[in-house]
Order: sequence, then C-alpha cells, then structure tokens
Amino acid sequence: MAGSTFGNLFQITTWGESHGKGIGVVVDGCPAGILLCEEDIQKFLDRRKPGQSKFTTQRSEEDAVEILSGVFEGKTTGTPISMVIFNKTQRSADYSEIAGYYRPGHADYTFDMKYGFRDYRGGGRSSGRETIGRVAAGAIALKMLSMMGISVHAYAKEIGGIAIEETDLEECFRNPFYMPDQKAAGKVAEYAEKKLSECNSMGGIIECVIKGMPAGAGEPCFEKLDANLGKAILSIGAVKGFELGSGFEAAKATGLTNNDVFRMENGKIVKITNHAGGILGGISDGSDIVFRAAVKPTPSIAALQDTVNKSGENIAVSIKGRHDPMIVPRAVVVVETMAALVLVDALMINMTAKIDKIINFYKE
Amino acid sequence: MAGSTFGNLFQITTWGESHGKGIGVVVDGCPAGILLCEEDIQKFLDRRKPGQSKFTTQRSEEDAVEILSGVFEGKTTGTPISMVIFNKTQRSADYSEIAGYYRPGHADYTFDMKYGFRDYRGGGRSSGRETIGRVAAGAIALKMLSMMGISVHAYAKEIGGIAIEETDLEECFRNPFYMPDQKAAGKVAEYAEKKLSECNSMGGIIECVIKGMPAGAGEPCFEKLDANLGKAILSIGAVKGFELGSGFEAAKATGLTNNDVFRMENGKIVKITNHAGGILGGISDGSDIVFRAAVKPTPSIAALQDTVNKSGENIAVSIKGRHDPMIVPRAVVVVETMAALVLVDALMINMTAKIDKIINFYKE
Amino acid sequence: MAGSTFGNLFQITTWGESHGKGIGVVVDGCPAGILLCEEDIQKFLDRRKPGQSKFTTQRSEEDAVEILSGVFEGKTTGTPISMVIFNKTQRSADYSEIAGYYRPGHADYTFDMKYGFRDYRGGGRSSGRETIGRVAAGAIALKMLSMMGISVHAYAKEIGGIAIEETDLEECFRNPFYMPDQKAAGKVAEYAEKKLSECNSMGGIIECVIKGMPAGAGEPCFEKLDANLGKAILSIGAVKGFELGSGFEAAKATGLTNNDVFRMENGKIVKITNHAGGILGGISDGSDIVFRAAVKPTPSIAALQDTVNKSGENIAVSIKGRHDPMIVPRAVVVVETMAALVLVDALMINMTAKIDKIINFYKE
Amino acid sequence: MAGSTFGNLFQITTWGESHGKGIGVVVDGCPAGILLCEEDIQKFLDRRKPGQSKFTTQRSEEDAVEILSGVFEGKTTGTPISMVIFNKTQRSADYSEIAGYYRPGHADYTFDMKYGFRDYRGGGRSSGRETIGRVAAGAIALKMLSMMGISVHAYAKEIGGIAIEETDLEECFRNPFYMPDQKAAGKVAEYAEKKLSECNSMGGIIECVIKGMPAGAGEPCFEKLDANLGKAILSIGAVKGFELGSGFEAAKATGLTNNDVFRMENGKIVKITNHAGGILGGISDGSDIVFRAAVKPTPSIAALQDTVNKSGENIAVSIKGRHDPMIVPRAVVVVETMAALVLVDALMINMTAKIDKIINFYKE
Repeated sequence: MAGSTFGNLFQITTWGESHGKGIGVVVDGCPAGILLCEEDIQKFLDRRKPGQSKFTTQRSEEDAVEILSGVFEGKTTGTPISMVIFNKTQRSADYSEIAGYYRPGHADYTFDMKYGFRDYRGGGRSSGRETIGRVAAGAIALKMLSMMGISVHAYAKEIGGIAIEETDLEECFRNPFYMPDQKAAGKVAEYAEKKLSECNSMGGIIECVIKGMPAGAGEPCFEKLDANLGKAILSIGAVKGFELGSGFEAAKATGLTNNDVFRMENGKIVKITNHAGGILGGISDGSDIVFRAAVKPTPSIAALQDTVNKSGENIAVSIKGRHDPMIVPRAVVVVETMAALVLVDALMINMTAKIDKIINFYKE
Repeated sequence: MAGSTFGNLFQITTWGESHGKGIGVVVDGCPAGILLCEEDIQKFLDRRKPGQSKFTTQRSEEDAVEILSGVFEGKTTGTPISMVIFNKTQRSADYSEIAGYYRPGHADYTFDMKYGFRDYRGGGRSSGRETIGRVAAGAIALKMLSMMGISVHAYAKEIGGIAIEETDLEECFRNPFYMPDQKAAGKVAEYAEKKLSECNSMGGIIECVIKGMPAGAGEPCFEKLDANLGKAILSIGAVKGFELGSGFEAAKATGLTNNDVFRMENGKIVKITNHAGGILGGISDGSDIVFRAAVKPTPSIAALQDTVNKSGENIAVSIKGRHDPMIVPRAVVVVETMAALVLVDALMINMTAKIDKIINFYKE
Repeated sequence: MAGSTFGNLFQITTWGESHGKGIGVVVDGCPAGILLCEEDIQKFLDRRKPGQSKFTTQRSEEDAVEILSGVFEGKTTGTPISMVIFNKTQRSADYSEIAGYYRPGHADYTFDMKYGFRDYRGGGRSSGRETIGRVAAGAIALKMLSMMGISVHAYAKEIGGIAIEETDLEECFRNPFYMPDQKAAGKVAEYAEKKLSECNSMGGIIECVIKGMPAGAGEPCFEKLDANLGKAILSIGAVKGFELGSGFEAAKATGLTNNDVFRMENGKIVKITNHAGGILGGISDGSDIVFRAAVKPTPSIAALQDTVNKSGENIAVSIKGRHDPMIVPRAVVVVETMAALVLVDALMINMTAKIDKIINFYKE
Repeated sequence: MAGSTFGNLFQITTWGESHGKGIGVVVDGCPAGILLCEEDIQKFLDRRKPGQSKFTTQRSEEDAVEILSGVFEGKTTGTPISMVIFNKTQRSADYSEIAGYYRPGHADYTFDMKYGFRDYRGGGRSSGRETIGRVAAGAIALKMLSMMGISVHAYAKEIGGIAIEETDLEECFRNPFYMPDQKAAGKVAEYAEKKLSECNSMGGIIECVIKGMPAGAGEPCFEKLDANLGKAILSIGAVKGFELGSGFEAAKATGLTNNDVFRMENGKIVKITNHAGGILGGISDGSDIVFRAAVKPTPSIAALQDTVNKSGENIAVSIKGRHDPMIVPRAVVVVETMAALVLVDALMINMTAKIDKIINFYKE
C-alpha cells in the first residue's frame, strides 16, 4: 500500500533510488516453467537506456540486469524472481546544489512535505530510473503474453505537437523518437534541435496497441481492465493523461457514431469499428486494445526558472546535468511493460470466472 | 480482486444489479465518531436520481438508502457500515427482448464471454445503477473531507462539444446539466433537444476541483494520488479518458511553459500556476487538485443499429426503454464521490509516513 | 484491512451487529454457473442456530437468509452475492445495564479503547452473531468444494476436558454437542448439567478433517495453506489455539517418529502416517488435512464476577441474559465454513502456478 | 498473493533460495526518519546464524546484510528498503542426490506437485534460509517498537519435552538453546547429545512475551491481532501449532477460571490475570501479549528412513549434510521478528480508528 508493489496474482515490488547502490524488482507469482535468462530482460532495458541519440540524455548508464533468484536450470521456479541493476556511477557531487531548493515540476517539494526530508541525489526515488524495475518485471510479462500469441506495441504518436500520419512499426527502431512515421520523425528532429538550443524541453503522446487479447479479461466494477491500464500508465512519472479508444473524442461524439456495431464475419462475432478501444464494461472484447498516454515535457531544463529554496527565499535556478529534452522515446518501453503487467494479471484472475473451468482444471 | 472492493484503509464493497432486489455497499474502515444519518447519504443519491428533467431518463426511481449497520446512537462505530437501496420496481418484462442479442456499446457480449451467461435485465451488474453504492459510500468520505476543510466539486465542463466559458458553481444546481455556465447550458439544451428527436445521445467532459487538500497525500511509485484518481474515475462505466491539470495539453507544451514555478507568498510556498493539477510525483502539493473525465454518449439509443444475436445472426435493433440521452449530468456526483474515496484513503495512509508522527500518536 | 474482508480471489466482506437491523455478507469472486438457492445457505445457518438444546442458548433466533444479488435464473452470475439475515428481535432493553461496565473476557474494554465508544447491545460487532455472515459465505465455498469431490467435516473432539474415543460422524447429528462419540457425549451432558447449575461455562476442542484435497494448494512463504487456515480459525471469536496434524505433540516428538515416510501404493505416492496434517511446506500434499481449534469457555456467565465500570469503580456483576454454557457445538459449523473459504481461495490461486496450464486454458 | 509479501502498511517482500545467489527482502511502508544502519540488522541475523554450538548446524554461514536502498544520510527515507544477503557458498554438489527423491517431512514432493519441478539445492525456497529476509525486515520493526517502548522477547520454553521452570531472560544468551532456565538447558544438552548420537532430531516450544503494547491495536473481525500473529508464526517453516494466553488449556477451563477480571489499580484499569494473553476480541488490551509456537523436529536426519524416488520406487535414504538437530534455538529470533512485523502493522492501521485523531493529525 506504500506503493512500491503492483498487481495481484502477478505481483511486482520495485525499489531503488537514482543514485543509490542499485535499482531492482521482485516478481512474485510468476508461473513456473518459463524459459528465462538475463538477455530476455536486458533487451528491454536497453530500449530505455539513455545516450542513444542527442535527443535523449547523454549520460552513459550501463544498466546490466542480474537475476538473483527464482530461476533454476534456465526456467522460472514459481518462487520470487529478484532482479537487480547496480548503479555503476553514484556521483553525487552534481546534485549537492539542488539539495537546497525545490525544482519546478519535480517531486522535491512534495517529498519534503511527506517525509520531512529526501534523497536529493538525482531525484532519489522519484527519478525516472525508478522505471528500470518496472521494465525488468514487465519484460517477463511480455514474454508470457507472447507465448500466448498476444503482442503489445507502443510508439510515439506525437512529440512537440507533431503527430504521426502513418504507423509503420518497423520505422520505430530506425529513428531516435520511437516514431512509426519517418517524415514526422524528421520534423520532430528539427523542432527538438531548436528546443535544445533554447535549453527547453517538450512533451508528447504515446500510443499502445495490443493484439491477440482474448475476450473476458478484466472485472466488471472497480477492477475494470481499462481502469487498471489507466492506473498503471498514470503511475509512470511524467504521464498527465490516459485515454482508451476514442478517448476524449468520445466526449464530442453521439451514440450513433461512437457505438461499435457487432457483425458476424467468417462465423465469428466482430466489431466493425473500435471506438471502445477493445474493452466493453471493463472486460476485453477480443478486438485490439488501444490507448494513449499524454507525457509532459521534461521538467529539468537548463533555462532559468524561478523557484524557492529551503530557507524560504525566492531564487532563480538553471537545472544543470545531463537531462532528456523529451521523455517520450525512453518512456515507450515503460508503457509497453506496464501494460503487459496489467494484462497478465487480468488473464490470470480471469481463469477463475467460471465454475466448470475450475472443476475441469482439477479433474485432469 | 474480483473487483467489487475499492480502497485500502477506507474500503468499500458494492453489490447489486439493475433489476435485482437492491443495490448496496459495505464501508469498512470508516473511522469511529462521525455523526451520520441516512439524510447525509440521501442528498447525494438524489443528485444522481433519474427523472429530474427531460434530459435525463424519465424512469421514476426512488432510491431511498437504509443504513443497516455501523452506526450507533447517531455516530459511526468504526465497524462496517452496510447500506442498501432496495429496487422498488423490478419489472423485467421490458428487457426480455435484449436477452437474445448484444447491444452495441454495452457489456452484454463481454459478460457472456467471461461468465458464460448474464443477468440481462437492464444491464444487470454493468448498469449505471451500480454506481449507487459508490455514491452512498462516497457521501461518507465527502463528509469526512468536509470536516477537514477539504471540498470536492465536479461539474459538466462540456456536453455535445459545447464547453463552458465561466465557472459559477451555484449555477450548476439551476440547470439540468450540472453546468456552471448558464449560457452554455442554454446551448446544450437546444442541442440535446435536437439529438433527442433523432433518437440519439451525446457525450461530454466532467471537471473536478478539490480545494484544501494538504500536501503529502499519495505514494511515490504505483500508488500515486493521480494514478488512483485515474483508476477510480476510469472505473465509472462510461468514462473513456482521464487527465490531470494540463493533461493532454501538456503533451504539446514545453518545459518552460508547463513547469509551475514556486514562489513565497505570505510566508508560504505556493505555485504561481497549476499545470500539474495539484499533484507532483504522485503526492499532493497543497494546491487545488484539478482533473477531467471524458464521458462517452449513452450507448442505449432508440435509433436503429446493427448488431448480432446469440444465434449468430446479423440483425438490426432499436433499444427501447427510458434511457438518459446523456450520461454526464448524473455522473457528476459519481465523479465527486469516487474522488472523495481516493482522497480519504490517501490521507489515512499518509498518517504513517513519518516515525515521529507515529511515536507522538501513541504517546498521547 | 479494517478487517471485515477475507480472502483474495474468493473474497467475503461481513457486516452487522448483534442487535442492529441485520447481519450480512457480500461474496465477491464467486465463479459463475453454480446452482445456488437460499436453502443451500439456510441449512448451514440452521446448524449454528441457538435454542437447539438446553446446552445452547435458549434465545429463539430465526436466522433466515435472503440472497439479494449475484444469482440469476438459479445460478451464480460471477458478480457479488449479497446475503442478509435480518435480526427479528432487536430488544435492547436487556443490555442497557452492561453499557456501563466491562464484562470480563469480552471485547467491551478493547472496543472502547480503540473506538472511543461501542455498540454495547449484545456485544455489537464482537458478538458471536458476527459469524452468521461467515457461515452464509462459507456455505457457498462448501458447495464448490463438494462439486470438486472435497469434503470438510468438523466436530467436537473434547468438551470440558472430556475427549472422544471414537469418530462416528453420523453420531454428531444425534447429540447436542456435535460429538462423534455417543458415550463421550453422555459424559459431557452430565458435566454440562452440573456447570449450568453453577452458572458457569466450559471450553472445548474442535477438530476438522478435510478429504479429497488435491496436492498443490497453498503458497510457499507467507501464504502457506496452514498459516491461512490458522488465521481463519483464530479469527473466530473464542478460539485461543490452532494446531495442524500432530500440532503441539510434534514439539515432544523426534524426527524419526514425526516424519511421515512416503511409499508407493497402487502406483500412487502416499504417506504412511499423517503427522504433518496434510500440508508440507505450506502446500497441500494430497492426504487428509487435519487441524484442531481450542475454544475458550463462554465468557458470559451468571456467576458473580469482579470488574470495573466506566466511572472507574470496582464492582461485581452477574451477566444476565440467555447465553450458551459452551461455544463449541455452535462453532463447529463456523470452523467448517471458515476452512472452506481458505481452501477455495487457495485452489483458485493455485490455477496460475504453471505456465503450461495458463497457456492451455486460453488455447481452448 | 503468491505469498512472498506480508503486511499491509508495513509490508515486506522476501525472495531467495538456499543455494541461489542470495536471500533478500524489500520493506515498503517503513516510516521516514528512523536512524538505521546495517549493524541494526546484522545483530539479529547473527542470532539465527548457524554454527554457534554443536547443537545447531556446523555449516559456517556468514550472513552479512547489505542495505541497497531506502536509507539516506543514516535515516530511512520512507521509500522501499532493499536488503540483500549474498550466499557465500553455493556448493550444490552435496544436493545432487536428493534431486531424485522426496525427503520425508520436507516440501520436495509438494513443490513438484505444484510447480512441476523444483530447485532441489538445499530445499531451495522452502529452506530455513528463507527466514533470513524475515529477520532482516523484522529487525527494523523491532527498532520501531523499541522507540515506542514496546519490547518483544521470545525463548525456548520446552525442547525435547523438557520444559523450563523459571524465566530468566538473560540466561537465554548463556546457553545454546535460548532457554531462560539454566537447569532445564542442562537437561536439554544431555538429551540432545543422546539424540545426536542416534542421528535423530527433536522438537520444542517457543514462547513470546510482548510488553508495553498499547490497547487498541488489531481489528475486530478477520484481522484480529491474534489471528495475524497466528498466521505470521504458522508461516514459519516448522511451526505446527499456535496458542495465545491459556491457549489449549482454555479448552479445559471454565468461564469462572478462564475470565480475567478487571480491577482498578493506581487509577488504571488492569486485568488481575492474563488468560486472554493480552488480546480481547482481536484487539490488544494493554497487558502483556503472550503466545506459544509448537516447532516440529528437524525433518533432515541422518538415520535411515523409507521414501520414494521420482521413478516411483520405494527406497531408503539417510539425509546427509550439516543439519540442525533441533530448530527451536535458531527460530527464536524468527518468532520475535515475525511478531514485530504484525505489531507494527497493527499499530499503524489503528491510527485511523477515530475521526478526531485524523482531524487533529492534519490540523497540526
């Protein structure tokens, strides 16, 4: 409840601060028998690694994961999987200055209000590095989903107000923005260059599409699949909004335009449109699940900003250090992995929805 | 986990179907010593009552709450408060037809996929009547907040694409739309009249403003205050999107425009702007908490729509019965009460954040 | 967490006070498709009904259960099942006196310390009537187990120090003590008669045997099946001890005598003895699960006892009213139903222990 | 729910196997501001360290704890505290043989039934080494309790049937059995010597006494303080029974002898006796909390035992390796720390029981 644990049957607990000894996660409830090695995790961590282009922070973090428990003879054992990523550089010198004031747009002030003091080095627990544990755990969830024929793909839909016009998923890996549209990515590069030179930063929108999800996952009331996806995504540091399917556009629509009609197609029930975004009444309907997250601009900027210090004086500051001018590209994999955690948990819970399924399970 | 329970320390469990014997809620963890009577609850239920204008359903539901436990000599005892609202009319005849097909935009299909069959009368558990239990429980949370000087006010910000231009909270109670802008309400009336005549429905946006919230509530990682508000709001039937503060606008902003700078004002630290919406790093910062919910159009419309029946045939249907042409006005109080549940829970959890506060508590 | 909710996937929430309007329970997470009617529940409630002999309280409580939700066309729908037992007589007059003092052996004093005041009528929430909700919910769990070939039988093993010497389960229903030994029951009748005449009460031991439980239920660490059975049983009002298999006898044993050796028998692995009580390492091993609960004497006795009143004066009191001279006979069904709740929950959670089982589930 | 997480507000998650890379725990919800260093933890780990006498295993484990997060400038930060104890020796050779058969009294068989295979090295997750994480986390809880004037002391009450006759806590640290009675410890040494020579092992009883606990902690229904203590203690590997206060003796008592009468003493309400063991109606009553745990003999013995192998053949085995001839002495600190975790959690939850306390908290 203190908030570092997420999920029910597939449950993760993350720990670690930006400049502490390391960052880690414990995955409890992972089923036994999954082939798992560090490379399965590492490839996802590498996608959120900084320093991949001039548009993400130039810090060189080598986030190498180590599996400490829960895997034996190459397979998960069903007992907790503990993973750690030791922080290679714990240089705290850069941060001594910010110990004394509250950075605008950061959690410095609220941490002090809540706890009385804070680990000010690099944002401590509120740093973006906190997501490393999420990604490591979510990588296992993604592997499980892929074994079940379910894919989860996120990408930058919009950065600095520049939106994609096509969705070529392979293009994502060819530009530094994780944008599935080469042309849009070009415009973003230009815009980002300009903002960088102004010591400024920019926001954007991440879209996520889930294919192959069976109907029936999610619970009717408070544990709706979309409510849990929303919580998962809104719990990522810089996310300020979440919408499913038509989302905020649905507010302007009418029932006739927004309802997705059902039709028979090759002997199967399908929806002709997908304004609902793949979830009806909180339960997956078998069509693609589509959602978007609004990501704010990086709050750490070198441009001069007003703020107050701990002595209660008005001051002006320029946040030094190597910061991302935009959060979106590195957050894409965080969105994918958080979504995967929600889906796996919902699929596991859904196994107990019908009595005949339970009886059959134990008959075998 | 099956999803009818919400909250941690202040925890509610709702039950009931649209056309069953009743709807109810159990509130567990409500502190002892709160003066509480049925009228405290009833006034909130009356705000979501149908039949208040021609723009909401003309069904006459008299939702009278009865407190069955947890209150003694006019005060809460600290033990579970059970409340029930018996359904006065359980006429199922109207619904016999829809038993055989899947209404577009409804949970009929997904309930069948999940559970193998469903209570088709009036949507059963997926009906909007499910929110009665939430409102009854949230009314207690709102009372607690008000005892602590915290107010929660929601209103229709936009209906059918028509947005408010001013925010006069008292006006909300003078028009059938819960809109804090008389002029906008007039335009909505006109538009709604037209849509009603077309057997169609419309969506909208609800905004909620929380004043007086102390800094420090909410937890840093997965249990961020905004993540939990998001989950609470997205768990309301027709909500398709949630945003905090600048929300999706933040995606287009830059760090310089989106960061809220801190200043000293009368010896107190304040934020000059509030793009963050009152929450930084998942923790309340002492300024107003502001969020918005996108609400889809009522899926039940009398206009002809395509769908399929349980025999797998393509058919066309017109949903009969008395349905709301818009969900927003009656959902306003649901948003307020769900928000209140999240706030109370977060405030209670936050009491254990500092060791000296705990030691002092038990010293007294 | 406030404590009126129990279980994870199969989750119950009880409410109600001894002399309030009623007692009830909400069962969330009950699988869809179970044939269920009020008679399925009532027969278990009748077993804990008072007034069945002179050795249980002579109050005439007619505890008739009413199902308010979650059942449609005779089957569970998968949504919450709300059950209520309205209190027929709410005579509070008898209890006005005890409002002012603390009954020895009761929760009067601790409720006042915790909540500042209490519903003193018949013990309020701490009354034995609180178990009605448990029994109603557990009746559904027992029905599920019986559909899976699992039986749960509890009985009085010892009352007032008089222990059974044989275990004839049918005999349980022929004597007022739920004792599976006619001779022992006769001796208990004699002893109880004597204690009744002395205005005194007596304790006893309940034993519970579960047959047909498949191996694999329960989790390795904190959620061991025996730990959860222990919690469930120790949460019943008057229970002061819990032991599994050899229990406290194991403390005097050696490894050689206490270990249960495995042998092949008809091609199956079996344990020759069952000192473990059917659970190894927290996980069911396929043999009978056997546990015992120590039940204290009824604290309400008519004999004169010292105590203090709320004004801080030493006084002497004689608890009037119609009280059970022993708790054991009526608690037997509570033990069975609490055990059933734990077993069903563990069986549901165990369905997700292996990846191939999950993949197969969704392949079908 | 998969069982490696324990507690609500003060929540721990343990991980690790006997012969994996290490053992660890994440503590989430620990209040900010507690002075904490590794020595605070190490002194408790040292108490469960093997090799301290010939009566505990002669393996030389150096369990050195490392704090990886959650502590900054010597104080807890309120964010998760991750602790790891790396396994120094991972010699798996000793265990290759037991991979093929099921040790009597161990979880080998049930792990195979549940997960399909197991980490057989030293018992894997079911090893006693799993308790290292509990002790490390509980050490923090004990520190918190001591700051609040609450002490928790456990000791061996009986080993191999030899019970203590006096309770001199300082004596515990002078004999290898943690027995507060020099004479009894002498007899145990003699008995244990004999059993060791027979390649056999023995059980015992641990008693725990908690002093200074304020009244009011624990919740009325399922989350009774005794139920949670019971669960915590029964979740320790070899524990087969739990009793509070008079425990199983209460089953033979009468109301008159078992009730603890209240009296005024120096202006305070006290109980003259403590058969209840410090908890009434699930809530602490301000007097000492006293409970006992029955611990079975070490199942790993060198004497020849029958069992079956994975090929389904009857075989006879002698468990080699360095095993404790008794579990009790090293489990004493595990009992203390598990109790402390329950108490801290209950004290934190109890802070929200009264509305005026909550209002005062936020007024300050």
